[in-house]
Amino acid sequence: MSANESPATPQQTATYESAFMKACRREPVPHTPVWFMRQAGRSLPEYRKVRDGIPMLESCTRPELVTEITLQPVRRHNVDAAIYYSDIVVPLKAIGVDLDIKPGVGPVVERPIRTREDLAQLRDLIPEDVSYVTEAIGLLTRELGSTPLIGFAGAPFTLASYLVEGGPSRTYENAKAMMYGDPELWADLLDRLADITAAFLKVQIEAGASAVQLFDSWAGALAPADYRHSVLPASAKVFRAVEGYGVPRIHFGVGTGELLGLMGEAGADVVGVDWRVPLDEAARRVGPGKALQGNLDPTVLFAGREAVETKTREVLDAAAGLEGHVFNLGHGVMPSTDPDALTRLVEYVHTQTAR
Amino acid sequence: MSANESPATPQQTATYESAFMKACRREPVPHTPVWFMRQAGRSLPEYRKVRDGIPMLESCTRPELVTEITLQPVRRHNVDAAIYYSDIVVPLKAIGVDLDIKPGVGPVVERPIRTREDLAQLRDLIPEDVSYVTEAIGLLTRELGSTPLIGFAGAPFTLASYLVEGGPSRTYENAKAMMYGDPELWADLLDRLADITAAFLKVQIEAGASAVQLFDSWAGALAPADYRHSVLPASAKVFRAVEGYGVPRIHFGVGTGELLGLMGEAGADVVGVDWRVPLDEAARRVGPGKALQGNLDPTVLFAGREAVETKTREVLDAAAGLEGHVFNLGHGVMPSTDPDALTRLVEYVHTQTAR
Repeated sequence: MSANESPATPQQTATYESAFMKACRREPVPHTPVWFMRQAGRSLPEYRKVRDGIPMLESCTRPELVTEITLQPVRRHNVDAAIYYSDIVVPLKAIGVDLDIKPGVGPVVERPIRTREDLAQLRDLIPEDVSYVTEAIGLLTRELGSTPLIGFAGAPFTLASYLVEGGPSRTYENAKAMMYGDPELWADLLDRLADITAAFLKVQIEAGASAVQLFDSWAGALAPADYRHSVLPASAKVFRAVEGYGVPRIHFGVGTGELLGLMGEAGADVVGVDWRVPLDEAARRVGPGKALQGNLDPTVLFAGREAVETKTREVLDAAAGLEGHVFNLGHGVMPSTDPDALTRLVEYVHTQTAR
Repeated sequence: MSANESPATPQQTATYESAFMKACRREPVPHTPVWFMRQAGRSLPEYRKVRDGIPMLESCTRPELVTEITLQPVRRHNVDAAIYYSDIVVPLKAIGVDLDIKPGVGPVVERPIRTREDLAQLRDLIPEDVSYVTEAIGLLTRELGSTPLIGFAGAPFTLASYLVEGGPSRTYENAKAMMYGDPELWADLLDRLADITAAFLKVQIEAGASAVQLFDSWAGALAPADYRHSVLPASAKVFRAVEGYGVPRIHFGVGTGELLGLMGEAGADVVGVDWRVPLDEAARRVGPGKALQGNLDPTVLFAGREAVETKTREVLDAAAGLEGHVFNLGHGVMPSTDPDALTRLVEYVHTQTAR
């Protein structure tokens, strides 16, 4: 049951009124809200401890473990939102695609999708496929109090890039060869992935996620015309499918400076920006009516406190005129990041932006 | 001795009047000139044959082999320029930096540069350090006739990223930590690399190279403000150092949409553009007085003849209003590219643009 079908509980009301949710809705905030992509993960010793010996994909199917890992950065850093601990390939695994996440490599797909026959691997996702997600989010919303939980999924292009390549790639030559060379098969693949992704996000929202982020991590590999023609329709289908819930929809990719306007157009309420485009310039590209999320270069956290504060100040200054701003890094937290630097960063943003 | 200190030979005059050189100078051309980054290399069976058993860096020090490899794509594809076969780490190896190119990995540096003391690894480069370059270019210019030879070097930032990281990186966390955290050491490192790079380019020009390309392959990892402050001064020093020769200076990086104006400003006559920014938009960012080079997505070559022609036509259409256009891919030729697709592409561009 979604939040807007039943009377709101006091907790739901408090969540709705949190700084993160207000910023996403472009309402005045008590302070700029902060969370970090990959805040739940390898940068935290308590994460490495509870994950010890448990393969990545298995860890995503254990509700208590997911709950613990999702909560760890909230406890430690005082971030303004939790992000559900999972992986973008989880829904694919859940519908039976033969894949695994190999340590030091990434997702590896046993039978890459190259022909129309290969599409048969992709059946629709039903909530029962991911009952552990529903269970974990139930546990989480009880623990989180007024802190919003962000659900997430990989966008059709990024999922397709793994499925067609068979694993991580720097060039996406097979995926793009299909996109350019067999546009009909490509469109069908992305459309099917849009349905799976939408179903996966719906499960998370129905279970209690307050917002969702669609990660099109590798969309930055595409020229704008190709993105518009061959990718945007599928991402837009995902966003439309969850529009009725009224939860903020965030859209993020890396190196997407040329695509920011189109990524907003696809249906996002909040557009994530990496560090390559200053937020004021990003706002011009995205246009009015959207909040922005970002965009401190994650490598700045390796450079000492003074540099972190200087570069953070630059981000906040560039964000000064935005309709809504969620502070984040421009990409995920890097594994070797000092967790204390992240905690200090949250504190710094909160202090600097307190109204 | 540089070309403009002695009377031009008929061959030098023919080279000067070639389509490639004219396009770089933004003069009318008989057809749009074409060459490909990494045209000399792994996509060619004749290259794999002559390289068989010879380590990469050793191959760069054998003048006859360099000559053969550089000529192979000129013979096969009828491209409008040759690019000197080498590697961006060659000048570093030549001054004694302990590094090697590991197959399947890339350049690996034995003692990464992290402190001021580590800078001692970087002494000045003198022509005698790379006498094989002078010899190879002498052989090449005799063989090439009127086809121009492009010399090249890695730009200070890209070289620094390898030296500080100790090898290839997707994130450049150590390099950027130095840039943000110890700006003085960073500036000294880049300044020293600028001198080495300039000296290496001078050797190539003095030996007979008709143009030079500075590869700042990884500059796209930087935000514009950081590029302007921490990288541009060193790249500008390189371009200034070779300005007096009057040879076209090309400047290229990947994912540099936000930096195109600055990369021109650094002193390039020709700005290379990857496929993410259409050339007409790139021209707006670069401003007048510069030619552009690019920018077909190299993955298009995996998609069949029809797709290649359609996407090439789009590049040529976007280039229609440019002051000068050198056709190229938006990044290097990918190793598994069908060489025949490249040959057909050259023919197609020549035919479509014949005046």
